[in-house]
Amino acid sequence: MAEFQIHHKLLLDSHRLGRFHLCHLLLHKNAILPWFILVPETNIIDLLDLPDALRVSLMSEASCVSKFIKQDLNCPKVNFAAIGNVVPQLHLHVVGRNPNDPCWPAPVWGHLIETADYPGARLREITTSLVERYGLDATL
Amino acid sequence: MAEFQIHHKLLLDSHRLGRFHLCHLLLHKNAILPWFILVPETNIIDLLDLPDALRVSLMSEASCVSKFIKQDLNCPKVNFAAIGNVVPQLHLHVVGRNPNDPCWPAPVWGHLIETADYPGARLREITTSLVERYGLDATL
Repeated sequence: MAEFQIHHKLLLDSHRLGRFHLCHLLLHKNAILPWFILVPETNIIDLLDLPDALRVSLMSEASCVSKFIKQDLNCPKVNFAAIGNVVPQLHLHVVGRNPNDPCWPAPVWGHLIETADYPGARLREITTSLVERYGLDATL
Repeated sequence: MAEFQIHHKLLLDSHRLGRFHLCHLLLHKNAILPWFILVPETNIIDLLDLPDALRVSLMSEASCVSKFIKQDLNCPKVNFAAIGNVVPQLHLHVVGRNPNDPCWPAPVWGHLIETADYPGARLREITTSLVERYGLDATL
């Protein structure tokens, strides 16, 4: 089987942090709020078309990221979505939200105007926490 | 325990079709595209905070709705999201999408401008299909 490739448009907009058992984990480059993207290694394009067992594993990895967002990044709320109208490859958005964020209460897609970059040190901190506490494999 | 109440803002925007085992099923009043909303009877507000077993049941009911959208309503694509920034009660969006719909490829939230109403006969057809083929209980 050919090696799995993450869609180039997803890579363009994000930092590649590592992988869990099933999913590659990306972090959207816009540091205004914590916006993670999970890309499972599958050719099925809609979340709700996945076989049950695969969807359960996938949601479990998304839950890990949600815990990290709430417990480590102190966001009270997490938005979750599988859209994929522009990039057809299945990818899940797990987005930390806060009533103080500049996009609240609008969803981020098409509404997040402000931008900021992650300093390299912050990216390393995030990755280290995910490795140490949530089992991320960052040895890409 | 007090009877479960669906949030009034959800009811305001939607037709109440019935319920599955876990979720109440609503259909957004905007008939431009098929936009279903599932409301599980739980007080937990984020999908990824649900206990695993409950989340599995919930996703399974969402998959039923997705099958209906694809097989019966002929939409090639389904968008799925749990947002809840405006209405805190947990609710899942399961939205049929088509490259020909007037909102494509934008997500519907905050981007769907055109509106249309469902004729009563169409609502009854949709409900009947969901009852007969997907086990919806429409005896509210």
